[in-house]
Amino acid sequence: MSMQQKEIFLKHLNEMNHYKQALELMTWDRHTSIPNDGLQDRLEIVGFFTEKLHQLQTSDKMVNCFEQFLSSGDSILQQAAQVCKTTYEQKTNIPKEEYKAYAMLCSESEAVWHQAKQEDNFKLFEPFLEKIVSYKQRFADYVGYESHIYDALLQEHEPGLEVKEIDEVFADLRPMLIDLLQRIKNSEAVVDANLLRVPFAIEKQKSMSLALLERIGYKLNKGRMDTSAHPYTFGINPNDVRISTYYDENDFTRSVFSAMHEGGHGLYEQNFGTDIQHTLLAEASSMGIHESQSLLWESFISKNKLFWESNRDVLKAYAPQEIQKLDLETFYRSLHQVSPSPIRLEADEVSYPLHIMIRYELEKDLISGKIKVSSLPEAWREKSAAYLGVTPSNDTEGVLQDIHWSSGDFGYFPSYALGYIYAAQLYESIDGALNMEQIYRDQNLHLVKEWLKEHIYQYGKRKTPLQLLKDTTGKGLQTDAYKTFLQDKYKGIYHL
Amino acid sequence: MSMQQKEIFLKHLNEMNHYKQALELMTWDRHTSIPNDGLQDRLEIVGFFTEKLHQLQTSDKMVNCFEQFLSSGDSILQQAAQVCKTTYEQKTNIPKEEYKAYAMLCSESEAVWHQAKQEDNFKLFEPFLEKIVSYKQRFADYVGYESHIYDALLQEHEPGLEVKEIDEVFADLRPMLIDLLQRIKNSEAVVDANLLRVPFAIEKQKSMSLALLERIGYKLNKGRMDTSAHPYTFGINPNDVRISTYYDENDFTRSVFSAMHEGGHGLYEQNFGTDIQHTLLAEASSMGIHESQSLLWESFISKNKLFWESNRDVLKAYAPQEIQKLDLETFYRSLHQVSPSPIRLEADEVSYPLHIMIRYELEKDLISGKIKVSSLPEAWREKSAAYLGVTPSNDTEGVLQDIHWSSGDFGYFPSYALGYIYAAQLYESIDGALNMEQIYRDQNLHLVKEWLKEHIYQYGKRKTPLQLLKDTTGKGLQTDAYKTFLQDKYKGIYHL
Repeated sequence: MSMQQKEIFLKHLNEMNHYKQALELMTWDRHTSIPNDGLQDRLEIVGFFTEKLHQLQTSDKMVNCFEQFLSSGDSILQQAAQVCKTTYEQKTNIPKEEYKAYAMLCSESEAVWHQAKQEDNFKLFEPFLEKIVSYKQRFADYVGYESHIYDALLQEHEPGLEVKEIDEVFADLRPMLIDLLQRIKNSEAVVDANLLRVPFAIEKQKSMSLALLERIGYKLNKGRMDTSAHPYTFGINPNDVRISTYYDENDFTRSVFSAMHEGGHGLYEQNFGTDIQHTLLAEASSMGIHESQSLLWESFISKNKLFWESNRDVLKAYAPQEIQKLDLETFYRSLHQVSPSPIRLEADEVSYPLHIMIRYELEKDLISGKIKVSSLPEAWREKSAAYLGVTPSNDTEGVLQDIHWSSGDFGYFPSYALGYIYAAQLYESIDGALNMEQIYRDQNLHLVKEWLKEHIYQYGKRKTPLQLLKDTTGKGLQTDAYKTFLQDKYKGIYHL
Repeated sequence: MSMQQKEIFLKHLNEMNHYKQALELMTWDRHTSIPNDGLQDRLEIVGFFTEKLHQLQTSDKMVNCFEQFLSSGDSILQQAAQVCKTTYEQKTNIPKEEYKAYAMLCSESEAVWHQAKQEDNFKLFEPFLEKIVSYKQRFADYVGYESHIYDALLQEHEPGLEVKEIDEVFADLRPMLIDLLQRIKNSEAVVDANLLRVPFAIEKQKSMSLALLERIGYKLNKGRMDTSAHPYTFGINPNDVRISTYYDENDFTRSVFSAMHEGGHGLYEQNFGTDIQHTLLAEASSMGIHESQSLLWESFISKNKLFWESNRDVLKAYAPQEIQKLDLETFYRSLHQVSPSPIRLEADEVSYPLHIMIRYELEKDLISGKIKVSSLPEAWREKSAAYLGVTPSNDTEGVLQDIHWSSGDFGYFPSYALGYIYAAQLYESIDGALNMEQIYRDQNLHLVKEWLKEHIYQYGKRKTPLQLLKDTTGKGLQTDAYKTFLQDKYKGIYHL
C-alpha cells in the first residue's frame, strides 16, 4: 500500500471517529445535563450526525479503503479494514427503506410498550412485538447464518459465539444455579441487607465512590463521575471517559457498586492502546467482554471481603456510624443477601444469570418461530417459576418488565451472562498470576488494572472474545471458574 | 422561488445550524465538564467540525442559495440569505493560506502573551503583536471600508456602526465620566463594599441566583446554570441555553450579579422567534445588543434598589445574618462602591466605560498606523492616568492585562461600552412603557422580559442594532439616557 493510500484510509477512519465522539458527547449530555425542552432539537441533531456517520460508513470511498487494506500486512490497518467491512455489511445488508420502516415501528412500539406496562396489558403490545419479531427474522436472513437463525443477531454483540455454544454453557449452569438458589432458600443463615440501608449523605457516598475509583486506577484527569437516572459509561475517547451513577440516600450500596461497575467499564475505555487510537479499533472487543470488565471489578473485586478489609479507611472516612460499627464479616454477608425477585433489575448475583436465561431462551424461540408472541406471557411465568421459584404476579412484573424488545433489541442479553463467565475465567487467571491477597492488603489494585491493560484493554477490537480468553487463560469459554466462584462464595455466606 | 429551491435553502441553513449547535455544546463542555487530558482530542474534533461548517459556509451551493434568495420577497429567507452572504464574504475575502498563517501566529502569540504577562516583559510580546496588527491591517483592506480602516474590523461585531459615530459618543461621555469619577473621589460619603464580603455558603449563593433568575423569567426547562472559570452563556438553541457563573465564598456579589448578567444574555437566546429557528437569524443582532441585554438586567434592574426591596424574601431565605441585618439603603450603597483600578475586570460601573475607551482608542490608532506597537505601554499608562486617575504599576497591570490582542481580537471592545448606551436607552423606553415601580413591587419582572421579547429578542439578526433602537426608542444612538442614569444614581449614592 502506498503512503498516500494509507493516509486516505487513516483520515477516513479519523473522520468517522470524530462523528462518533460528537455523538457520544451528546449521549453523555442527554443523560446528565440537557434541559428538558432541549431534547427535541437534540434528537434532530443526533439524527443528522448519525446520518453523516452512516454515509461515511457506507461510502464507496470506504469500500475502496477496506478492500485495499483487508490483506495489507499492517496488522492494525488490516483489522481496522475488517471492522469497516463488518460495519459496512451490517449497514447495507438490510434494504434502506425496510430499515427505516422498522426504525419507525420501534419508536412507536416503545411508546406502546410504556402504556402496556403501565396498564398491565400485554394484548396492546402484542401486535407490535409480532411485527418487530418478523422484521428481525427477515434481517437475520439478510445477514445470513449457518446453523441457527438467532446466530445472525448474536454476531453484532458477541462476534464468534453461536447458539450451540451458549446453549451448552447455559445448560451447564442452569441446574447448578437453581440448586444453589434452592439451598440458599433452605438455609437458616441470617444475611440481612437491611443492616446497610441507613441514611448516608449523598455527597459522602459520592466522595466514597471517588476514593474507591481512585484505588482501582480510574483516572479523573481522563474522566469524571456524574449522576444520571441509570448508571452508564460514556467513552468519548480514551482521554475522556465519563461514568455516571445514581444515589439512594438510604442504600449506599446502589451508588457505590454502580460506580465500581461503571468504573470497570471506564478502566477498559481509558486504557485502549495508543496505537489504535483514532482507528475504529479503540472499542471493546464485544459487549460480553465489556461487561466482564465491569463485573470483574464489581462482583469479583469490590464485593470481595478482602477489598473491604483493605479499604476500611475509606469506610471510616465517609460512612455513617451504623455501618462503621458492623464487623467485617457481617458487613460482607449483608452485601450478599440472596432473594429472588421476578424483576431482573432487582436480582442478586445468584438469580441474575437465570433472568438472562429466561429471556435468552424466549427470544431465541421467538426468532426461530418455535413459540408465538401470544404465548409469551404464559411461557415467561412458567420459566420464572421453574428457574427462580417466583411467579410474577402480573405481566408488568413479568414479560413486560423491560423495554428492550420494544426497541428491537434482540441478541444481546446473553452477553450479560457471558460477562460473568468471562470475568470468572479472567479472575482465576489473575489470581494465578498475581498474589491477590497481598494486592488487597497493600492497596495495590492498580496492579490488576495493569494486568488487564496488558492482556485485555490495550487490544480493543483487535482480538475477539474467544481470542482474548485463549490468550489469557489458555482455554475456551468454560463455566468451571464461574461455578466455583459462586458455589464457594455462597457456601461461606449461607453456611451451605 | 420554487418550493424545491426553498427546501434546499432551508436544509442547507439547518445543516449549518447543526454544526453550530454541536460546536456550542463542545464549548459549554470545555468550560464546565471536560477532563483535563481530554482537551487535546477535543481541539482536534472542534477543528474538524469548524472546517465542515466553513465548507458549508463557503460552498458553491451556498452562493447559489443566497444569490437566489437575496431579493426573494420572503423577508425571513431574504434576511437569512443576507447573513449567508455576509458570512461568505467574511470567510472568503481573506486568502485561505494567509488566514491559516495568521491563525497559527495567534495561537503561538497567545502563549507568548501569557509568558510576557507573567514576566512583565512587553518586549517579548512586541514582535508578535506587530505581526498581528499588520495582518489585521491587510485583512481590513481585503474587507474594505469607506472612511476609516478600523470600520472594517468593527462590522463583524457591530454592523452599521463606524468610527466616526463611536468617536462622537465616546467624546461626549468621556469628560462626564472623568468628572463623575473625580467628584466621587472627592466625596466624603461612606460606601463600603466590604460590608457584603462575608462568608456565604456556595450552595446557598447558587440557590439564591437560581431563585432570582426564575424571577426575571429565565427558564430552567430550557437552560441550566453551571460553574466555570469565567461566567459565560452558551446558546445551543433557544430550547437549550446554558449559563455559567463563578463563586467566591466571601463575596456573593460576584456570583449573583454574574448570574444576572448571563441570565440577561440567556433570556435573549431563549426567546428568539420561533419563525427564525433553524435559520441563521436566531442569533443576537450584534455583540453590543447582546451585551445591552446582560447589562440591562445586571446593572439597570438587579442593581436597582427597588429590585432588592422586592426580593428581600430571597435574601432572607439564603443570605447570612450579617447581610440580612443591613438596612436596604446600606445594602444598596454597598453594591456601588466606586474605586478605579488599573484592571478592567475589577472595574466599577463608572470606571468601566473609561477602560473600554482606553483600549478602543489605542487599538484604533494601532490599526490606522497612528501609533506603533513599541509605544503602547507608555500610551497605555498615559491614558490610564488621564482617564482613570490611576497609573498601572507595571505592564502586567497595564497593556498586558488582557489576552484579546494576542488572539487577534480587534474591533469588538467598543461593543462593551455600546452595550451600556443601548441598555440605558432601552431601559428609558421600558420605564416609559411600563410602570416599573409597580413591576418591582409586584415581582412582575417577567413583564419586562415580555416587552423585550416583543421589541428585541424575537427578531434575532433580523434587525440591526440601529434599527432596533429606532423601532423601540424612536431615536438613534444617544448618550443622554446613559449619562442621566449614571449621574442620578451616583449623585444619590455619593451625595454629590
